[in-house]
Amino acid sequence: MNSPTKPTSHGPKIVVIGGGTGTFTTLSGLKYYARDITAVVNMSDDGGSTGILRDELGALPPGDIRQCLVALSESDQIMRDLFNYRFEEGTFGGHSFGNIFLTALEKTTGSFAKAVQTAGEVLKITGHVIPVTLTDVKLVLTKSDGTSIHGEWQIGNGVFDEAKPQLSLEPAAMLNPEAAAAIAAADIVVIAPGNLYGSLAPALIVPGLAEALQSTEAAIVYICNLVTKPGQTDGFKVHDYAEEIERFIGQGALNYVIYNTHKPTKHLLDKYAQEGEFAVEIDPDALKMANYEPIGTDTISDTLYKLNPADQRFIPRTLIRHDSDKLARLIMRIYFS
Amino acid sequence: MNSPTKPTSHGPKIVVIGGGTGTFTTLSGLKYYARDITAVVNMSDDGGSTGILRDELGALPPGDIRQCLVALSESDQIMRDLFNYRFEEGTFGGHSFGNIFLTALEKTTGSFAKAVQTAGEVLKITGHVIPVTLTDVKLVLTKSDGTSIHGEWQIGNGVFDEAKPQLSLEPAAMLNPEAAAAIAAADIVVIAPGNLYGSLAPALIVPGLAEALQSTEAAIVYICNLVTKPGQTDGFKVHDYAEEIERFIGQGALNYVIYNTHKPTKHLLDKYAQEGEFAVEIDPDALKMANYEPIGTDTISDTLYKLNPADQRFIPRTLIRHDSDKLARLIMRIYFS
Repeated sequence: MNSPTKPTSHGPKIVVIGGGTGTFTTLSGLKYYARDITAVVNMSDDGGSTGILRDELGALPPGDIRQCLVALSESDQIMRDLFNYRFEEGTFGGHSFGNIFLTALEKTTGSFAKAVQTAGEVLKITGHVIPVTLTDVKLVLTKSDGTSIHGEWQIGNGVFDEAKPQLSLEPAAMLNPEAAAAIAAADIVVIAPGNLYGSLAPALIVPGLAEALQSTEAAIVYICNLVTKPGQTDGFKVHDYAEEIERFIGQGALNYVIYNTHKPTKHLLDKYAQEGEFAVEIDPDALKMANYEPIGTDTISDTLYKLNPADQRFIPRTLIRHDSDKLARLIMRIYFS
Repeated sequence: MNSPTKPTSHGPKIVVIGGGTGTFTTLSGLKYYARDITAVVNMSDDGGSTGILRDELGALPPGDIRQCLVALSESDQIMRDLFNYRFEEGTFGGHSFGNIFLTALEKTTGSFAKAVQTAGEVLKITGHVIPVTLTDVKLVLTKSDGTSIHGEWQIGNGVFDEAKPQLSLEPAAMLNPEAAAAIAAADIVVIAPGNLYGSLAPALIVPGLAEALQSTEAAIVYICNLVTKPGQTDGFKVHDYAEEIERFIGQGALNYVIYNTHKPTKHLLDKYAQEGEFAVEIDPDALKMANYEPIGTDTISDTLYKLNPADQRFIPRTLIRHDSDKLARLIMRIYFS
């Protein structure tokens, strides 16, 4: 029997911070092991369909939110396909339906937070999807020579060859109180893999987030990227990524760092090398000295074929990607340890 | 106790044929008195947002379908507002969200019928919404001088001053078998009020529909328009409208004709007269001779204010419109007579 003074436990409370493909992968795996999942999502995206909706309609950025909603969706494949559908031609060419859905809901309800909640009901999601901030922000990178790059898309896709670039949000953002509450109540907070400066940092630097991570009793887990990004993280090893994450959320804030030890095929590595991307290397000595517990294992998807969510056909794998179930199992193992 | 050989009755089976505002009004009222309602919807709309989606994406026309779905929706106001939301600016300016929703679903499911069904589930509709045809058709009006007008929008909004214009669909349409089945099983079939040549006729002339109406045991009820349309139905009286409807569905096919006997305010009549529109007059002698039963009564909305569905505020009524509840009660009275 449960003690009347202690709330009944229903599995782990997990918060995943991020936005983009790595977050989608992490959430897609976790939903099979946990119900109380909260995605805290980057809100500075300004590229592609999302960028046009922001520019033309003054909408808050729907793209990363949409991906998280679809990842946590328990609804029919039809609805998930619909939300991920991208118009191919005409006036709507290049626009994602899910983005249009969220923007129209923001307009009719007058609130992006309400729009995300309603979309979550339509998609029957497990858990919650929460914008890290409801402030309409843009990411700015200031270089040591005083010049700056404006906009997440420009930063995420640019070459700035700058160690420890200074990032800020304009105007000053306010942490969504729901995100703060979820982090405070969490058992585990996962910082998902993703573009370090163009996707993770803009979420992590929202004022108040570092403090929330430092004061929670949750275990803080960072899942390291698989490949480096040319002009941004060239030569980065696992501990370099972790160090940069801690620059944003506070020295000593990470409890666990998960990284991949399984070498992708030479064919894939060669293909990535042509783009200036290389598998993230491991420095065992640096990891031994770290304040966090390093967890190195095979985290990549080794299936030769993958299911294409657009048409449900199997297509040959041509990407080095995390395996959603392997990540989920590692996170759950931390919870049960 | 019910006889085992006779199916349990759960209220009337009602089919409403049409598309546009008059159909929306009819369905909105009926849903409070009946559960088994099937809207059989005109599919030749090619104006506005619908026309662009047809032209650019090869989609079937979503506009009238969307209105019927919203009319029968039992979901939260949020979802109904969302489906009726029209973007005001930017790339999406003028487009209805519900139209985009149906078109994206048609693309992802590969079937307009499946798209309509799924949208109905999302909107939690009472009853069913069925395209009168799944053939991609355009309306053509051929004048006695041999010239022709192409497209429903052109016809519905044009001046052709032609008695009994010849209408056809290109290419030849096929009646949706689900529409045929609904009509065969119906207790009452309602031909909703609406633009005679630009909205009702294109549904009524779909090959097979007249035959379905002639062979059903359902009572066939036509709800007459309130005002004439300049250049199209100038001087039409109630029996003229009914005669034209029977030209499309077969002489003697109508069992009841509902028409309004309550004069709108002089202010409203004057306003309409400036546009060349006049209240439809009644010829009692002609109606006495008719094969159908004429039901003349007050059918118009006499509230001084109406709820604006866009923002849920009350706005002064400036339109001569049918009252949805009055129409529904008249239809139910026929069922119980």
